[in-house]
Amino acid sequence: VPGGFATPADLVAAAADRQPRAVGRLISLVEAASPWLRDVARLLAPLTGRAEVIGITGAPGVGKSTSTSALIGAYRAAGRRVGVLAVDPSSPFTGGALLGDRIRMTEHAADPDVYIRSLASRGHLGGLSWATPQALRVLDAAGFDVVLIETVGVGQAEVEIASLADTTLVLLAPGMGDGVQAAKAGILEIADVLVVNKADRPGADDTYRDLATMVRRVGGDGPRPRRAAAGGPDLDEEPDRWTPRVVRTVAAERTGVGDVVAAIAAHRLWQRANGELERRRVRRAADEIERIAVAALRERMGDVRGGRLLDALAAAVAAGRTDPWTAADDLLGAMTQTQ
Amino acid sequence: VPGGFATPADLVAAAADRQPRAVGRLISLVEAASPWLRDVARLLAPLTGRAEVIGITGAPGVGKSTSTSALIGAYRAAGRRVGVLAVDPSSPFTGGALLGDRIRMTEHAADPDVYIRSLASRGHLGGLSWATPQALRVLDAAGFDVVLIETVGVGQAEVEIASLADTTLVLLAPGMGDGVQAAKAGILEIADVLVVNKADRPGADDTYRDLATMVRRVGGDGPRPRRAAAGGPDLDEEPDRWTPRVVRTVAAERTGVGDVVAAIAAHRLWQRANGELERRRVRRAADEIERIAVAALRERMGDVRGGRLLDALAAAVAAGRTDPWTAADDLLGAMTQTQ
Repeated sequence: VPGGFATPADLVAAAADRQPRAVGRLISLVEAASPWLRDVARLLAPLTGRAEVIGITGAPGVGKSTSTSALIGAYRAAGRRVGVLAVDPSSPFTGGALLGDRIRMTEHAADPDVYIRSLASRGHLGGLSWATPQALRVLDAAGFDVVLIETVGVGQAEVEIASLADTTLVLLAPGMGDGVQAAKAGILEIADVLVVNKADRPGADDTYRDLATMVRRVGGDGPRPRRAAAGGPDLDEEPDRWTPRVVRTVAAERTGVGDVVAAIAAHRLWQRANGELERRRVRRAADEIERIAVAALRERMGDVRGGRLLDALAAAVAAGRTDPWTAADDLLGAMTQTQ
Repeated sequence: VPGGFATPADLVAAAADRQPRAVGRLISLVEAASPWLRDVARLLAPLTGRAEVIGITGAPGVGKSTSTSALIGAYRAAGRRVGVLAVDPSSPFTGGALLGDRIRMTEHAADPDVYIRSLASRGHLGGLSWATPQALRVLDAAGFDVVLIETVGVGQAEVEIASLADTTLVLLAPGMGDGVQAAKAGILEIADVLVVNKADRPGADDTYRDLATMVRRVGGDGPRPRRAAAGGPDLDEEPDRWTPRVVRTVAAERTGVGDVVAAIAAHRLWQRANGELERRRVRRAADEIERIAVAALRERMGDVRGGRLLDALAAAVAAGRTDPWTAADDLLGAMTQTQ
């Protein structure tokens, strides 16, 4: 076991004892997909399920880092321990790790009850790092009451953050695009709380009104995108629909942050009252299990006949000698044979 | 077989004979995941591989529809048949089908050698419709020389479009965000041709210069994101790197469209010269096979013990009674048993 711990159990025990070095070690193990991962996951499991998970997303420039910092302050003032996972959709140009570093520099750097970590989303453009759910488990097990997951709202990341978090905040700023753009980008489908940051800027009232109108329309007799289709699995059914709250902030001046915290708390109460919190967490676990299982199966696919079968089938499809369905059947057949 | 065709073979033959009704029928079959899909795919396979596939993406408001329309005009003037797939990341608010409808209204509506079709990306927020690669095969088999795939550049769609297309155009407009934003959003990683549309507007020269500088930096001694890691599979290796072209247009006035066509042609020549076109198409086929195989495996996962096993395992993980790795092992073990 790396980091000078004798066994994975020692390492997990040290993290549960809130030793920052052990927490850091564990997240590094997770990021590196260490062979110890399974042992560690097994040991973490009974310690998890307590943390409140809040996702924060939005386009570049809306003030995510400032808002995250303000939220950390608000939760610390209430005596809660706060973990932050800043997921940077990695770019070869930025080299990743922008958001986290910016936060790390702020007033919370010296607070032992705040733990901030950047995760790069290597090799998965626009998506969260595959390590994010597991890093979340580490912070949960280490006794952080609140875990903020922050990611820039480009690409798949904002969809994934919504499936990971108990409550998802989407940040907007005036002039970054009106409500119609927000609807187009699917923001309303994932937001539990909409935050209009930089609310002291021109156009903020328009943005706020647009969003409030849109939210009301959806909450009223508009379409209800989250409700499962009739006959769908229980897991996806919701007894009622949450109407996203719209809140105004000037995060740089800490204005409106209390309203954000209150909106998050209201969402949590609503979730608890109708079983949605449990449902969301079970769904999250199902996603995670499926993702691990699919990754294992993909690996098996790639391994069939030393990886040459998929290449050969792909060449045949590209040349029009076969179709992708028949090729997939061949691949699956070969996998079953070699099991 | 729907649509009054006696057999799938008749339907495919009619499409190969360029009958628009048969083309439309086939794409509808694909969209509806019809049970005839496998038969149809098998019949289409030998007819495919000729079309030139061009992806067009960009943020809302950059002028994608206008640019697509201008490109259709340019290719038609060269005597080429043009198919268009407009993929709308579906939103419950727009109901999808925005882009395609807008194009359909234009000057090309009456041209029998232009076929335009909207595909909604249902249930896969921010991604292309899973039917897109198959609809592409239909248009390819129906003898369209050029297929344009247009999608709004939000989310995963723009990554997926780059993996589907031979050449990917990313559209930008001045004032929509400078070069740094473009880099952040990962645009440079997917663009083969960068188009600064609305180039008559203030700020266009700055945007153009920013992009040109950035492209030069990457093409020169900067990082080379597309190059495969040492020891990676042959499929991912590139003998050389294409330096994205940057082009200025005013699509509404058809200005600069010839430059776009020339840039696409240059990219294609480069691809042919070093085997990259073939490599990209084999990779695309491998993706498609894998996607179909994974979907089949996911279905099997969901079916294990009437779908109750995954639910039970997810509940156990959420409650901390087991960890996701052990749960995934259990799921895969049960799948293997029941095969």
